[in-house]
Order: sequence, then structure tokens, then C-alpha cells
Amino acid sequence: MNPKSENIVWHAASVTADDRRRVMNQQGCVLWMSGLSGSGKSTIARALENALLQLGHAAYVLDGDNIRHGLNADLDFSPAARSENIRRVAEVAALFAEAGLITITAFISPYAADRQRARDIITGTGSGTGGRASGRFFEVFVNTPLAVCESRDPKALYAKARAGEIPDFTGISSPFEAPASPDLELPTATMTVETAVRRVIGHLEKTGILTTKGEA
Amino acid sequence: MNPKSENIVWHAASVTADDRRRVMNQQGCVLWMSGLSGSGKSTIARALENALLQLGHAAYVLDGDNIRHGLNADLDFSPAARSENIRRVAEVAALFAEAGLITITAFISPYAADRQRARDIITGTGSGTGGRASGRFFEVFVNTPLAVCESRDPKALYAKARAGEIPDFTGISSPFEAPASPDLELPTATMTVETAVRRVIGHLEKTGILTTKGEA
Repeated sequence: MNPKSENIVWHAASVTADDRRRVMNQQGCVLWMSGLSGSGKSTIARALENALLQLGHAAYVLDGDNIRHGLNADLDFSPAARSENIRRVAEVAALFAEAGLITITAFISPYAADRQRARDIITGTGSGTGGRASGRFFEVFVNTPLAVCESRDPKALYAKARAGEIPDFTGISSPFEAPASPDLELPTATMTVETAVRRVIGHLEKTGILTTKGEA
Repeated sequence: MNPKSENIVWHAASVTADDRRRVMNQQGCVLWMSGLSGSGKSTIARALENALLQLGHAAYVLDGDNIRHGLNADLDFSPAARSENIRRVAEVAALFAEAGLITITAFISPYAADRQRARDIITGTGSGTGGRASGRFFEVFVNTPLAVCESRDPKALYAKARAGEIPDFTGISSPFEAPASPDLELPTATMTVETAVRRVIGHLEKTGILTTKGEA
């Protein structure tokens, strides 16, 4: 009936992580980027996604643009809602990693406890994908001094925060708990976006996340 | 520095749907499967995912197994929580479709209004991915008579519902609003899983969702 599906072996067994790895030439993972507003998270994330696609790899960015107005549109910026925001992002990232994608999250994620919870969910020590998750998790610290972020101030948020118009603004009136031992650190004050992206891709090669089409 | 990334063209432009389509040899979409408990949604979904992977396509199933215990672990089965469950699934499915995956959802989703909302979110007439979504949406009705589902009763849920132990059980004490004009209808009482999967794959070919590796 259908020429393409004639040679399929029919079985009820679930798709394994190895099946996906072979088809997609990569291992699903999460690159969890944290850093101050204006540190360059989204810029690096988008450039990285673009570079990975050019290399033939499936990648996807989860950030405020596609999460805050969609899945998490019901959440405000209270401390409880911020934690719930990160929890849901981690659960979704765990699903993406299980699906085989190189998943890049770009959220300030200022609290160490929330990032640890994200790691637990994604690596399967937490509740991710119903406890079935066993994704690779890389913590990427986009480490840019507050003064540099504030001088960039692309959305004029720091100016508003200094004027007291935004309460609980990370770095000004709310703490940023810097990652103690990130897998990667990207000091964007002294590193170009291109170098940052090359650094991340090098890490993905070194850790066996990326495999070559020809090898499959 | 990194051999693989030497030839990358660096630019800040966002990845387009065409970029993803070319790399992934497919167009992201959502196959929204609805039907009674025991109708065969999950069985068909898992077999379809498996078949697509064998054909070299990236596919992923969202169902109770990976959603209810993870992302939606905070939701119960009240009417409001059921709607929120479907809303979140639709938002996540919209993200998966945007990422280029053939996304298969397998939830009873008994209410026409919830399914319409899912369609709106995924096709971009709703809030999906912050209004950026423009995914293809296919409604798949796993149409199995209640009597057949009840005779299968794989989890002994119908027996409990008949005994009054489960309130608001779809088909028994809560309505199932059958899709009025689904893109595909799979009558599993008279159709094997294999035939159902072939039917869906045929539809994906006919609608241009699947492209051939060699063509890329």
C-alpha cells in the first residue's frame, strides 16, 4: 500500500535512545545557559542553534520568547512563579532531550537550587518524563560582569530597575547565585559570540553528543 | 580551532522553518490523536513513532506516560485541570512542531473545544510559542466503539468506573465529543495497528510532511 513503509519491521517495543541516536546522528542533551539579563544568553543560544543546524544537527532553543507567552503565559514573576517557570522549562527540556534534540535553554535562572532541580529532572534523578529521563545535562554559565550587562542594557531594563520601576530585578535588587562548577563558562565581555559558539560545539564533540552523518 | 565548525557562516538570523525542513527531511507537525480509553491511541502512537524512526524520521510521542508524571504532575483530573492539561500539551506540541519533529499526542481529549484550542495554539492562531507557531495540525480520531474499549479494558478502568469508583470517566459518566471532521479516522475494531500506522504514514507523505533523504 505504501512503498516507503513496506520494509518496516513491526513491533510494539518502545523506541530506544540508541535508535534515536542512530537516526539523528546525535545524542539528546540539554545545554542549560544561565546568566544575568544582557549577558548574551539568547544571542549565543540562537547563534549556536543556527550553527548546529548548518552542521546538520537538530537543535532547538527554549527561551522567554517561546515559553513566557505560550506554555508559561499563566505565570507572573513572583518567586513561586519563577520557580514554577524553571520547573516547567526543565520538564519540557527533558522531553526534548529524550526526543533526541540538542536542547538549549536561555533563562536567567538565578537560583542554584532551581538549576539543581532542573539537572535532577533532566538526568532522571527527578521527575522528568515521568522518571524515564536520563538526558545529558551541561550547565553553561554566561559569565558577564553586571557592569557590562548594565552598559549594554538592550531592553532598558536595568535603567528601569535602578529607577525602582522593576522590583526584584536580578543583579540589582535580587541575587544571582553564580554556578559554582559549570561545565562551560563563557565570559562574553572578552569573548566573541563566534568563539563562544565554537567553544560549546567543541564541548559537544568532546563529550560524544555529536556523531558524523557518514558514520551512521 | 574546531574542524567541524570551520565552514559555518556566522549570522544572527533566526533559524527558519525551511532550514529545519532541509536538515531534518521533514516538516514539523502535530498528529493529535483522540479517542476513548482503550481505543488504541498509545499503541498506535508508539508503533507509528517506531515506524517513522525506522524510516529515518524524527518523531516523538507525548502521552500520559511522559506528561502526567512530569510537566503536569501538579494537575488533577478536575474539569479545569483537564483543560489545563490539554493546553500545556498543545503548547509543548507546538514547540516540538516548530523544532521540526513529527509530534504525536495521545490523550483522550474528549472536548471539542479543547481540541480546537489545541489546533489554534499549534497553527499559530492561538498563543503557541508566543504567537510564532505555524505548525501543521492533523486531527486523528481513533474511533473505537465504547463496547470494544470496555471489553479490552487493559487497565481495568472501565470496571472501576462502572462500579462507581472513578468519577467522570469518559464514555461512562463523562461525555466524549467525537471529532466532527477529523483529518484521519482509524477504526481499530476493524483495522490492525499495522494498517493504522500505514494509513497515517501515507497521509504524511501525501501532505508533504515527509521528504526523502536523497532529495535533500
